[in-house]
Amino acid sequence: MPTVYEERRARLRKIIKAHKIDALLVTTEKNVTYLSGFSGDSTWFLITPDSETLISDFRYITQLREECPGVPTYIRTSKTGMIHALKEVLKGTPIEQLGIEGHTLALNVYRELEHELENVSLIEVNWQIERLRAVKDQTEIAEIREAVRLAEKGFEVLKAILTPDCTEEFLYFELEHSIRKFGGAGVSFHPIIAVGDRAAMPHYRPGKLTISQSPILLVDWGAQTHAGYKSDLTRTLLTNPSTKKFKDIKKFEKVYKTVLESQLLAIEKIAPGVSCREIDSISRDYIKKAGYGKYFDHGLGHGFGLDIHELPRFSQGSDALLEPGMVVTVEPGIYLPGWGGVRIEDDILVTKNGCEVLSSVPKDWDSVHVSC
Amino acid sequence: MPTVYEERRARLRKIIKAHKIDALLVTTEKNVTYLSGFSGDSTWFLITPDSETLISDFRYITQLREECPGVPTYIRTSKTGMIHALKEVLKGTPIEQLGIEGHTLALNVYRELEHELENVSLIEVNWQIERLRAVKDQTEIAEIREAVRLAEKGFEVLKAILTPDCTEEFLYFELEHSIRKFGGAGVSFHPIIAVGDRAAMPHYRPGKLTISQSPILLVDWGAQTHAGYKSDLTRTLLTNPSTKKFKDIKKFEKVYKTVLESQLLAIEKIAPGVSCREIDSISRDYIKKAGYGKYFDHGLGHGFGLDIHELPRFSQGSDALLEPGMVVTVEPGIYLPGWGGVRIEDDILVTKNGCEVLSSVPKDWDSVHVSC
Repeated sequence: MPTVYEERRARLRKIIKAHKIDALLVTTEKNVTYLSGFSGDSTWFLITPDSETLISDFRYITQLREECPGVPTYIRTSKTGMIHALKEVLKGTPIEQLGIEGHTLALNVYRELEHELENVSLIEVNWQIERLRAVKDQTEIAEIREAVRLAEKGFEVLKAILTPDCTEEFLYFELEHSIRKFGGAGVSFHPIIAVGDRAAMPHYRPGKLTISQSPILLVDWGAQTHAGYKSDLTRTLLTNPSTKKFKDIKKFEKVYKTVLESQLLAIEKIAPGVSCREIDSISRDYIKKAGYGKYFDHGLGHGFGLDIHELPRFSQGSDALLEPGMVVTVEPGIYLPGWGGVRIEDDILVTKNGCEVLSSVPKDWDSVHVSC
Repeated sequence: MPTVYEERRARLRKIIKAHKIDALLVTTEKNVTYLSGFSGDSTWFLITPDSETLISDFRYITQLREECPGVPTYIRTSKTGMIHALKEVLKGTPIEQLGIEGHTLALNVYRELEHELENVSLIEVNWQIERLRAVKDQTEIAEIREAVRLAEKGFEVLKAILTPDCTEEFLYFELEHSIRKFGGAGVSFHPIIAVGDRAAMPHYRPGKLTISQSPILLVDWGAQTHAGYKSDLTRTLLTNPSTKKFKDIKKFEKVYKTVLESQLLAIEKIAPGVSCREIDSISRDYIKKAGYGKYFDHGLGHGFGLDIHELPRFSQGSDALLEPGMVVTVEPGIYLPGWGGVRIEDDILVTKNGCEVLSSVPKDWDSVHVSC
């Protein structure tokens, strides 16, 4: 039986044929991982219709043997640069049309390839492996389920250890430590843990604010498995909402319920064949009608897996159609500068007939209130 | 008084003049941070001889105001891509020769710039900011000293909590948690914590091996400050070396003392004006003479700061000369596949007259033995 990596390479070979190229040079780190199982860096993967070679260096000899059994490798020495190693690998092959990943390949590396590979034409074959990666196989879906489970367990700890004095940063560190104790590799990205008006900054990083400074607490976090698969969730809580400092509970409730309803409506429509723009519009239009249109200026969601941002994207600019096996976030938000913000984010698998929400952290209005 | 960022931009402007370009488009994330203080991502920095503009999006409005006071910003909407935002910024300016960072700019972005900026010539001005960054200013040296201190305190905890049953990965997680509790942002790279023969893999990642499985324990770690500055150290320990499993203590001692002596000899010669190749040769030749030449096939060390690998590089291919203010690692190693390895790494500041070793974790032969 073929391994998952062999299956993925078989899918890629159809693309190689369709593009009428003799080989594809995979230089994007996560694409190399996806196609080979190799988890290190500084390694290129040359794939032809009937062969493949990992080009790496001596630091990775053992790791390559363990992670990619059966895949031929070319180990360069510290004196041989990558491009010269590639030249050696290409020597004597009939490769004339070489596909490259122009969306990540640095311009100066391209120039050097152009200069060094005399009888080879370089052809940009961009985003093709990323498109394959947008549709997850069973191995990946299992990993993502585990990443969601780890994130949820970590969040339970975060809620349990909340005290008025703890800082955003303290919560980040404890969250990551918990995820690791539960068996994960750590967080899947620098989480956003934001108190009060900081919740209006969609890319805030946890800092020195304490829980007691405002009842609003936005947590955008995820976990990562050892194989590198990720989850991505957001919840917005009200800590000790009865505190006298918070006069805006009615306003918060309106914002929260608007975001939640807009999210539920969008999730409901997720199914194969639906366009990403359409899903984006459902939330966006709902928020606009509620009068908050200009306070939601990011895409509604995105695919994720080995990277935290993958295809497809939910945005007004995306023509992509949903397919079974895609795993996406749906994360509308309303951000009121100087006041605070609400975002609610879940992880959703597109199934044959509709979708399955992989995450299950409570998000109804009652679950928002946390005493500490 | 000019801020450190203004001083750095003033140094960059000399380079802009020397290259006879009208502006430099800074797209490398850490270079943007270095020149502006902005710690987020997805942001470009256009620098002309007498102006500067950060091009970002609405997610970073508040952060830009807080981190880069006084620096003009252009905030694009989610509908305006980066390149169109740049076009807007360039409109009406006399910029014809635009420098770009071809060593990090993706080929497809370059193609789009070429296509969209009709009357502008794109000129590769590669590695120039990285060359500036190789020489640290006082602010940076203070940050690096703090990163070294954090790493050292973390390592003390790691040694203190060693037990025969703990895994490499457990040590990694506790190490990072300690660094954070001491006030750091975390580890500065995925540390290498390797038991036994895994110590022969220069880029091993902490796994499930326990301390009891071999007396050899290699730890390559560093800490990161909140401003993003890093440290990078390695120590190789012998845990419970009297155990019967370990018959090779004499061999280990010879390897260890060879690495240590080769490192001390190289550090001794670090001073302004000395070539990086020469420093590399000192360790390399010493290890070669001891009969281990083919077991040391990586560069002797590298600069570090905001990135873990910066200029200069100690290698046989490096013509660079050392300058006061450079901060480098010296990290010779001997790796015997299937048996284990030794690497010793310290952090060194090049001073006016010689150098200062910033790190002070004991490394003499006696300090290697740890009971647990």
